[in-house]
Amino acid sequence: MKNYKIRLQYDGTRYDGWQKQGNTKNTIQGKLEEVCSRMLGEAVEIHGSGRTDAGVHAAGQVANFKSERAMKPEEMLRYLNAYLPQDIAVLSVEEAPERFHSRLLATSKEYRYRVWNSPIPNVFERRFVYQDARSFSTEAMQKAAAYCLGEHDFQSFSSVKRSKKSTVRTLRHLDVERMGDEIRFTLEGNGFLYNMVRILVGTLLEVGEGRRQPESIPWIFEQKNREVAGFTAPPQGLTLMQVHYKV
Amino acid sequence: MKNYKIRLQYDGTRYDGWQKQGNTKNTIQGKLEEVCSRMLGEAVEIHGSGRTDAGVHAAGQVANFKSERAMKPEEMLRYLNAYLPQDIAVLSVEEAPERFHSRLLATSKEYRYRVWNSPIPNVFERRFVYQDARSFSTEAMQKAAAYCLGEHDFQSFSSVKRSKKSTVRTLRHLDVERMGDEIRFTLEGNGFLYNMVRILVGTLLEVGEGRRQPESIPWIFEQKNREVAGFTAPPQGLTLMQVHYKV
Repeated sequence: MKNYKIRLQYDGTRYDGWQKQGNTKNTIQGKLEEVCSRMLGEAVEIHGSGRTDAGVHAAGQVANFKSERAMKPEEMLRYLNAYLPQDIAVLSVEEAPERFHSRLLATSKEYRYRVWNSPIPNVFERRFVYQDARSFSTEAMQKAAAYCLGEHDFQSFSSVKRSKKSTVRTLRHLDVERMGDEIRFTLEGNGFLYNMVRILVGTLLEVGEGRRQPESIPWIFEQKNREVAGFTAPPQGLTLMQVHYKV
Repeated sequence: MKNYKIRLQYDGTRYDGWQKQGNTKNTIQGKLEEVCSRMLGEAVEIHGSGRTDAGVHAAGQVANFKSERAMKPEEMLRYLNAYLPQDIAVLSVEEAPERFHSRLLATSKEYRYRVWNSPIPNVFERRFVYQDARSFSTEAMQKAAAYCLGEHDFQSFSSVKRSKKSTVRTLRHLDVERMGDEIRFTLEGNGFLYNMVRILVGTLLEVGEGRRQPESIPWIFEQKNREVAGFTAPPQGLTLMQVHYKV
């Protein structure tokens, strides 16, 4: 049995997210499984490093799949890019150790969230940014971001229903930069709960707008209640940039 | 009568080009006239600096229109960006002298043509690049480009049927650069014939591929025959960058 690791990019605009759900074939995972199964002449199951929501993009998603068939990685790369839709591209294919698992062995992930902050719409990047022309204080957002770093129970910043699973995660970076008319959030952590990046960004934007104080962040953590955090920033601004593994 | 000058951007992917034709409402000019007419409560005619073909984009198209109604340019800017589709954006609106005409007074135009030259497809820029994974010699294309500079009869590089109008134009820049996996052509000249940029780029790509010699360019000019030049590079790689006027 061979184990293949792939890195891929996608424009998530027209998909119902990464994960196959019931009959929904319109997912990244579904498209990949369809083309991989055809390529290998057997039913292939793709494991992603994590789900991305409907409308979210990836510049460096990682997945793996196992197959009885030996096929050259370069040949797979060519086949996949020839038959996948034009909004999904495979960057690399390599043979991985049998025990490699893209989700279980991921040590950290990096996300980027882009806000186009101008009264003039951005026609070229519009699928990859959230457009909001209001005034935001970068300084206030940076101050609030500092309170989010480190190990916390992120329950308040997640849409997951209360469950027995731990909601403690470690956020190593949450950078807020203004680059011309763009506000760019870069997040890196050991794991992210459902909607966590989008709720963190939504909350920071409310701080930037002046509707919340940076100092209110510790209180939000303490409440362990989704209701007290900010809005869920829309999906199109979010891109999964990289997934890291122990070497 | 007031004369307004506007600068605008558009993603031309889903349009039948700039110019209204018969009943075709699906043009940039058509959309603009529709929204401007509604805004001003009178039939507005938009004059563009020039047509762009179906699928071609603009980062800095210029147009003008006249109106009896006095409306603040800032108000127009807000109105237009609120009501235009999300793939058309107005960058600026200003009152211009009565005699300003976006097409007749343009002194030069700048176009960019982008080729994505990699076996790995580009999912994020795919609407704005022509994807071709073959090997191209940048050096050969640069050599051929040098033969195109200056004043020439560009008849061979145009899809226009033979007519009495002059096909002599002056090309001031034709830069060919490789930037990572992208080959970028930047052209500036005092005017461009129908399909001229795309046929120039198509011909240079055939030189880059080794199917033509750079030294064959003067011969192509001499023939004054579209048949002897290269293919018409596809529209999606082309963007009208800027239009210049005498100040």
